[in-house]
Amino acid sequence: MAQVIAERKDIDFVLFDQLNVENVTKHPDFAEYNRKTIEMIINEARNLAVKELLPTQKEGDEVGCHLENGKVTTPESFKRVWELFKEGEWVGTSMSSEWGGQGMPHVVATAAGDYFSGANFAFMMYVGLTNGAASLIENFGTEKLKKLFLKKMNTGIWTGTMLLTEPEAGSDVGALTSTAVKNPDGTYSITGNKIFISSGDHDLADNIIHACLARIEGAPAGTPGISLFAVPKIWVNDDGSLGEPNDVVCTALEEKMGIHGNATAALALGTKGKCRGYLLGEENKGMRAMFLMMNGARLHTGQQAVACASTSYLNALTYARDRVQFRRADAFEKNAPAVPIIQHPDVRRMLMTSKTFVEGMRSLLYYVGLLIDKVHMAKDEKEKAELESLLGFLTPICKGYCTDRAYDVTNLGMQVYGGYGFIKEYPQEQLVRDTRITMIYEGTNGIQALDLLGRKTVMDGGKSMMAMAAEIQKVVNRAKETEGLKELAEKTEAAVKRLGDAAMHLGKGMMEGKIFNSLVFSYTFMEVVGDVIMAWMLLWRACIAAELLAKGTRKKDEKYLVGQVKGAHYFIKNFLPITIGKIETIMGSCAAAVEMEDDSFGGK
Amino acid sequence: MAQVIAERKDIDFVLFDQLNVENVTKHPDFAEYNRKTIEMIINEARNLAVKELLPTQKEGDEVGCHLENGKVTTPESFKRVWELFKEGEWVGTSMSSEWGGQGMPHVVATAAGDYFSGANFAFMMYVGLTNGAASLIENFGTEKLKKLFLKKMNTGIWTGTMLLTEPEAGSDVGALTSTAVKNPDGTYSITGNKIFISSGDHDLADNIIHACLARIEGAPAGTPGISLFAVPKIWVNDDGSLGEPNDVVCTALEEKMGIHGNATAALALGTKGKCRGYLLGEENKGMRAMFLMMNGARLHTGQQAVACASTSYLNALTYARDRVQFRRADAFEKNAPAVPIIQHPDVRRMLMTSKTFVEGMRSLLYYVGLLIDKVHMAKDEKEKAELESLLGFLTPICKGYCTDRAYDVTNLGMQVYGGYGFIKEYPQEQLVRDTRITMIYEGTNGIQALDLLGRKTVMDGGKSMMAMAAEIQKVVNRAKETEGLKELAEKTEAAVKRLGDAAMHLGKGMMEGKIFNSLVFSYTFMEVVGDVIMAWMLLWRACIAAELLAKGTRKKDEKYLVGQVKGAHYFIKNFLPITIGKIETIMGSCAAAVEMEDDSFGGK
Repeated sequence: MAQVIAERKDIDFVLFDQLNVENVTKHPDFAEYNRKTIEMIINEARNLAVKELLPTQKEGDEVGCHLENGKVTTPESFKRVWELFKEGEWVGTSMSSEWGGQGMPHVVATAAGDYFSGANFAFMMYVGLTNGAASLIENFGTEKLKKLFLKKMNTGIWTGTMLLTEPEAGSDVGALTSTAVKNPDGTYSITGNKIFISSGDHDLADNIIHACLARIEGAPAGTPGISLFAVPKIWVNDDGSLGEPNDVVCTALEEKMGIHGNATAALALGTKGKCRGYLLGEENKGMRAMFLMMNGARLHTGQQAVACASTSYLNALTYARDRVQFRRADAFEKNAPAVPIIQHPDVRRMLMTSKTFVEGMRSLLYYVGLLIDKVHMAKDEKEKAELESLLGFLTPICKGYCTDRAYDVTNLGMQVYGGYGFIKEYPQEQLVRDTRITMIYEGTNGIQALDLLGRKTVMDGGKSMMAMAAEIQKVVNRAKETEGLKELAEKTEAAVKRLGDAAMHLGKGMMEGKIFNSLVFSYTFMEVVGDVIMAWMLLWRACIAAELLAKGTRKKDEKYLVGQVKGAHYFIKNFLPITIGKIETIMGSCAAAVEMEDDSFGGK
Repeated sequence: MAQVIAERKDIDFVLFDQLNVENVTKHPDFAEYNRKTIEMIINEARNLAVKELLPTQKEGDEVGCHLENGKVTTPESFKRVWELFKEGEWVGTSMSSEWGGQGMPHVVATAAGDYFSGANFAFMMYVGLTNGAASLIENFGTEKLKKLFLKKMNTGIWTGTMLLTEPEAGSDVGALTSTAVKNPDGTYSITGNKIFISSGDHDLADNIIHACLARIEGAPAGTPGISLFAVPKIWVNDDGSLGEPNDVVCTALEEKMGIHGNATAALALGTKGKCRGYLLGEENKGMRAMFLMMNGARLHTGQQAVACASTSYLNALTYARDRVQFRRADAFEKNAPAVPIIQHPDVRRMLMTSKTFVEGMRSLLYYVGLLIDKVHMAKDEKEKAELESLLGFLTPICKGYCTDRAYDVTNLGMQVYGGYGFIKEYPQEQLVRDTRITMIYEGTNGIQALDLLGRKTVMDGGKSMMAMAAEIQKVVNRAKETEGLKELAEKTEAAVKRLGDAAMHLGKGMMEGKIFNSLVFSYTFMEVVGDVIMAWMLLWRACIAAELLAKGTRKKDEKYLVGQVKGAHYFIKNFLPITIGKIETIMGSCAAAVEMEDDSFGGK
């Protein structure tokens, strides 16, 4: 079967050859899984994605969501697929089986999600937000709330969302003004206006459980005064039946550049004074709770973007094999025939760039999925803390770096199509528009860069980064021993060393109080960390591929494996020198952007 | 007045301080122009753009163009503005005054166009295509045709288009299959299907003159058998009156990602056997003629993109000054107030990057506009040939490099807005969508890169590039003598030298027959040439600014000039090291993308 959305061979290679995910099935919590069941899950996810979900992508974009008479409707085709997701138990794949989820290893759910998000990520946001809200309830809700909400959410009977943003509180969540007042029965009355609420209202399910941030009357200003609440769209009676509407009103849907299939709602809570919510966790500890969920959402965002990039690459590849234009540049005979454009060097550059980034990022995302499983399986607190620290370091890369590069790949995919890439008859322009949001939501990529440099590197004393460097070194050492990879190993090793210099340099600047002079390089720092991780992942792939090739392999796998070795060469020789150039700019400490006076920017 | 679309001070700085455009007014053809009239033209262009054209941008996007009962309609507001363009004589600004144009120096028309394209470039494409078709008629048409068509086109009574693309002939124009058969009266009967025709049909003017490529029956295959024709939508009688419809039928409008205000038409010619055209120039010499026009169109495309980037930058700047989020990163007091986001380092990075690219590209585009004027004024063939050669070298940069960087800037502009950047309530997302086409049409940027490396560098023996290097050296020498710019001068000089090495390396590869191994780096080559040109333009600006600052200047200009010096520092220290990294990749000659076997790409 032709590969669409994601290359199946590549998924298997990462899962079984690179990450040896069968190891997780040794843990009692994953005892029911083995290679066979994992392969079956991926097969089913692919079938559902290709046959049912992908065909809804265009309708989602063209029809979009509508608010009429207070009701939000999603595209007709979404309803049918939502039912299939419920039937197939695809809503709560990695949610706890105790509460109706599948309890799948995260790394396996990530692989399945590759197909789903690449098929229609606006649709998958209804799933993703539901998982996020359910995680909060599972982690911070009382037994009563878990029983009331979780099973229905994890099986897709109800959905969930996150209510953070307000008009004056975007990136700066701590500035929010929604209020909560405690009622005698222990619930809280909520009042406020939330905007940009993905999956905020719709007609896919009977109820929506909103995880909502608000400030309890009298609580401190800013982040320390924020609490988290579970606010149902329809009140849920203690016996689980649905009660009255809970005074959560969708006042508008945003018109957006992309992801039209997902309803981005403005919600007014408590305009009639009748909106109630349950406290999740402790009072004034809402931001801490939300951060836990946000990390998952950030990883999920990276996955959405990379899934779109993967789809874009495979579309472009198919197009480049079909589209005939121009004779070969090395064919000088007058009547040389025109050839498929995949034979032209610049098209090969675009495809090769797309392929290596998609594959490098896929490895990273699955690696991180496996880290989450390893945290779950950690034998002690020390191991757990170490794994969590590495996970924390990689999270802003999965979100910030991967969404940037995924967007680049979708733009390359459009470019391969030429004029056809810009028109709506072909899928490429939607992929560009849809992917674009991933650089913004769940914390803009600029916020990710600050998180990476400030919190995850400098405040961490560089420990997580050193832990990563140690992991990279293992691959470097292996590559040094592998025929044909020594040069690549050395280049990667040199880049890691130079990256360490850059981190030291920026950290030193911050310690010395030149905070802005370091932070102005936070974005560049995120880019170079990401590049080095790509080199790591691709070199790792090349090691395995070279070893398999040396052992001898099935003819049909050989070309794929050779492509892995070539991919590492391509990336390390064509991108790492640029990374080194970027590190030079960090070391150069140009302060021009910091020193610019407001008037020098112009505009007045 | 607040600066929108383009920074007026910056336009004046480039025109009068950097390029000394008053010099062109010494030429008799431009004798009626002087600094005062030029300033007046820019003032009027700005007024028209800001007050009348900019307000139509959103309607153009939302309403778009429609085909109903064979008639194409444009947004209602476009009609009024088209009349204003006619009244103000803005359609034929740089067209020959002999034929109803304004005969404006190109550099001045370019500056005026900065405002127009930044306000609504989908609208301006009706003007641009008209100019392109009129140029072809002026250069290759008979006296009769000039009299029939030109004045009406240059005054906007009629418009024009270019009919190149066919379904199987996109980038490879030579593959087209439209045919022409000579009639006894000297006209040709044309038959064929053209697609992707910008401004291809509309209701702004009574007639459209299509410049159409077709193959005369019996002509050779490929490019050498293509001829150029003027094909009116409505036949024009010899007395200039309109005759019968000329069997040119709009069969469809494309649904696109952006530029919705421009009608992208599929046209069927001669389905009833009644489409006639006039030959322009000689039989089978159509491609050569079209190339002449295409160069103009490519420069114009660069200008469209940079104008959008300029608008995006100024929008983002205003937003960053208004939007309050977070306290400063160096404010540790608990109750430190939230500040406008322009005070945050990463936002400054985005603004500074946008500013320097917009300004560097503006300088380049005006410089090239002036080159066109200098070609026109050249005192002999030798001087003309030298100027044309440099112009030819810079054209793919203006198109390929500038549209890429302009797209980056519009994406940064969206990013500064955060979530608000993605919704249609604000102008940023439209700027991203509109700008995206500039990387594709008038020859994809990949085609530009091939043109730059193959035709304009290697086949040219590097002469044009050396001529450019000599121009850069003048600025470098000047900067070496300027207080505070020595380091920047040396870095720029080193980059130019290294660029020469890269060109030699790629040229040598091609001479030795390793054509693909060089061409696979054509895109990187275009990027590094563009970067070096940015450094040149920004260093040049900094020299002038530093000199003016040393002399003493008006208080209100001081901040602007300091910004120029800082801009050069910012670019040369933050981007040239990356350029050097890219040159290293060229010198590294990685052949992985060339060597990849088809199956190794996957997808099967």
